[in-house]
Amino acid sequence: MANGNFKIKPMNIETGGILIAVLNQSDARKHDFRSGDRILIKKGKKEITAVLDVTSLPRTLANGKLGLFQEVIEHLKAKKNDEVTIHFAGKPESLVYIKQKLHGKVLNQKELHSIVDDITNDRLTDIEKTAFVMGGYMNGFNKQETVYLTKSMVETGETLSFKGTVLDKHCIGGVPNNRTSMIVAPIVAAAGLIMPKTSSRAITSPAGTADTMECLAKVELSKKKIEKVIQKFGVCLVHGGSMKLAPADDKIIEIERPLSIDAEGQLLASVMAKKHSVGAKVVLIDIPIGPSTKSKNRSEANKLKKKFVQLGKALGMKVKVILTDGSEPIGNGVGPLLEARDVLAILQHTDAAPKDLREKSLMMAGILLELSGKVKKGKGYHRAKYLLDSGLAWQKMYDIIQAQGKQKMPYLGKYSFDVKSSRKGKVKSINNLVIAKLARTCGAPFDKGAGLYLYKKKKDKVEVGDVLFTMYAYSDEKMLQAKKILINQKSFEIK
Amino acid sequence: MANGNFKIKPMNIETGGILIAVLNQSDARKHDFRSGDRILIKKGKKEITAVLDVTSLPRTLANGKLGLFQEVIEHLKAKKNDEVTIHFAGKPESLVYIKQKLHGKVLNQKELHSIVDDITNDRLTDIEKTAFVMGGYMNGFNKQETVYLTKSMVETGETLSFKGTVLDKHCIGGVPNNRTSMIVAPIVAAAGLIMPKTSSRAITSPAGTADTMECLAKVELSKKKIEKVIQKFGVCLVHGGSMKLAPADDKIIEIERPLSIDAEGQLLASVMAKKHSVGAKVVLIDIPIGPSTKSKNRSEANKLKKKFVQLGKALGMKVKVILTDGSEPIGNGVGPLLEARDVLAILQHTDAAPKDLREKSLMMAGILLELSGKVKKGKGYHRAKYLLDSGLAWQKMYDIIQAQGKQKMPYLGKYSFDVKSSRKGKVKSINNLVIAKLARTCGAPFDKGAGLYLYKKKKDKVEVGDVLFTMYAYSDEKMLQAKKILINQKSFEIK
Repeated sequence: MANGNFKIKPMNIETGGILIAVLNQSDARKHDFRSGDRILIKKGKKEITAVLDVTSLPRTLANGKLGLFQEVIEHLKAKKNDEVTIHFAGKPESLVYIKQKLHGKVLNQKELHSIVDDITNDRLTDIEKTAFVMGGYMNGFNKQETVYLTKSMVETGETLSFKGTVLDKHCIGGVPNNRTSMIVAPIVAAAGLIMPKTSSRAITSPAGTADTMECLAKVELSKKKIEKVIQKFGVCLVHGGSMKLAPADDKIIEIERPLSIDAEGQLLASVMAKKHSVGAKVVLIDIPIGPSTKSKNRSEANKLKKKFVQLGKALGMKVKVILTDGSEPIGNGVGPLLEARDVLAILQHTDAAPKDLREKSLMMAGILLELSGKVKKGKGYHRAKYLLDSGLAWQKMYDIIQAQGKQKMPYLGKYSFDVKSSRKGKVKSINNLVIAKLARTCGAPFDKGAGLYLYKKKKDKVEVGDVLFTMYAYSDEKMLQAKKILINQKSFEIK
Repeated sequence: MANGNFKIKPMNIETGGILIAVLNQSDARKHDFRSGDRILIKKGKKEITAVLDVTSLPRTLANGKLGLFQEVIEHLKAKKNDEVTIHFAGKPESLVYIKQKLHGKVLNQKELHSIVDDITNDRLTDIEKTAFVMGGYMNGFNKQETVYLTKSMVETGETLSFKGTVLDKHCIGGVPNNRTSMIVAPIVAAAGLIMPKTSSRAITSPAGTADTMECLAKVELSKKKIEKVIQKFGVCLVHGGSMKLAPADDKIIEIERPLSIDAEGQLLASVMAKKHSVGAKVVLIDIPIGPSTKSKNRSEANKLKKKFVQLGKALGMKVKVILTDGSEPIGNGVGPLLEARDVLAILQHTDAAPKDLREKSLMMAGILLELSGKVKKGKGYHRAKYLLDSGLAWQKMYDIIQAQGKQKMPYLGKYSFDVKSSRKGKVKSINNLVIAKLARTCGAPFDKGAGLYLYKKKKDKVEVGDVLFTMYAYSDEKMLQAKKILINQKSFEIK
């Protein structure tokens, strides 16, 4: 491969990720470069490796010009028509391992680390990353590979570390509301344990814990600030995205999402890498079972449970997995504000406190208290109940709201609509997917005060005309869209 | 999904393929759009569907702005700050089939057509295309799927159609020179048959037939011009890339290349789609066997042969497959000009004519003459020899050189270097990969007069100091690079 001299043309576009340089087809042929090749660009003493994109369009780029995206321009401190030389830089070694994975080879620690490191540092193209994700999806990762994948994700990202017993919890998702973290975390912190709770924002659901907590306090905190809050109060409730915990995981999910695939090995590594990154030694995982969740039945859930426990052991973490009912929303609100209100009602003991969410949270907090060794076996639930009912958990939440930065509560959507029952009977089932879709169509999670409030849950008696739930939206148009969904899709089954 | 009003920001970049629109993260969240979503953009009565890219970089795009790549701008006849509305447009249906392929489903004609059509028309992202290629690579395509894939590639591209018996040939590649097309095509055309020979340029080899023919005549011809040349002379030798024959094939190869994978189902469909597109009814396929070729041994080659014949039958084509010796270059020149000289020497009967290339071409032309029914079985070789030796084949070549547009012959590289034997003995083997690498390092195929000329072939006797081959380059620097390769890599084995 030959080298060459080029003049820079800034492309005035940022990728926010992979470093890209562009040649036109004629120059690429002349120098025997192809799309996807890595080239080393040298300007004086500065140099950087970028991925080459070849354009067939002379209008985009004239002969003798090297187009550079903004990040490359900045690194080289280059400007238009500056002269640079380019050199063939080979392909990342990780590509060899990715191909081996496609052929069914079991990868070792060094190989997986190399792939994860290149993903973390944006050295792979979408085509290459997709090939890796497909290899893992179609050929699977065995136990040992999953351990290496998880460790590599942790090692290539930021980590937190605290003195004392660090706990964490995770729910596999698929159940509206189910906002246990915001209750469990203050309870265990009130017991003197540490829970650096980093959560995600909603992707396809009406609210993530980060979106919900953001109704009360700031959640985009720096690593330094998070460490300060935890050192003082033992707990935080923040958006994981503000720190770079296991960033490869997020980049892999960006490939999976447009294909809506969910590789099991990747799911395991994803969850456990985030927990490992915050220094958790004791982890409680909630696998809800139901038609809208990952595990459709007990046997599927048990298989996944076993894998979590195995992976935890290999990573030196105590992992307990509970299988729970995921067939209907847990709590009454659906949408950031409405879920935050449920949480506050439980922490502050008002009449609006939803029983199911309170009981599930107490059960989970109790397990964590026992696992941590803080409370004797069999006494966890009662201790958790005491910490909640005494107001100590609320005090913790109050403290971290102040410490993270109190937010003005968003207002509830002023457009509301009551969905009433046209039948008499009992609630036989609630369709989580329709409930989530309605809440999102109303505007959640972006419109924080949009969503649903449920008045009826499974097994409740219903009369004709009873309000099943109320929908809230910030605009008439969104409410109209939500109402349209009601025509064709069934949220409640009453018999 | 909500709609929204935006002002256009032209991104001043062309993709040459997929249509791209960009939103910043805040706007995307607000309207519940995600990277990879398809959005319908409306400006007055004009509308177009584009793939959404979400940037986290506010510097690239302010709130309320929709970034549009050049092709989208042109379609909408839009300019900066024009107002447009955007609407969620769902994902292409083909994505459902791609996911099914990942899960091992056998796809039917409608499903494969839908995928191929979306690939042809740039409706899929790199991530989505890679998922499809991986599904085919890892799960394979069965016989029927390969037929559908081939047909879909043909149907979604341009096609040629001629009166009379249309022949074609193809070599699987991996052998330097082996420039039989430029000899076979004029011979069969001299017999009154039709061969619309479209060839490729070199990708990793030192020359493709299109690169070699370009030393003599123009090869980038319009479909109209090609039809004219064939109607007059029965033959052409052009670059297939100038027409859109089975364009999905090229787009799939763009995904395979950076991963250096070569899926068998895709290879079969790729070759046969190009032949089907030019209307070929009789096809001769050459599978060379050797360490540098796709088929390493006879048993592998026979498996591939069987699949070609089956696929041909399903497509209504008569396909004959020959297995040939691919262990050393066929012909003496390696590189466009040096290979073109071999071809001319054979067509013009000069002393420089390489025997191996001449004999292989006569054998292949003979088979085609017999297959077409033009010549009785057993008489093909002799008829081909007559057509070559009588000068009739050269007359055909002369005619199409004039008709396609005669080119001034490139000059031979003025930097030359003789590689001499340090041993006495017989040539035991020649390493095609090293020969190809040397020729490319000398500058082939871009520097048309760069490459190698071989004086010795397998089984030839060699004395110490005999010239094995001469290397030619256009620059001292490239020659130096080539010489460096000689130090560590063995081109000839002499024993």
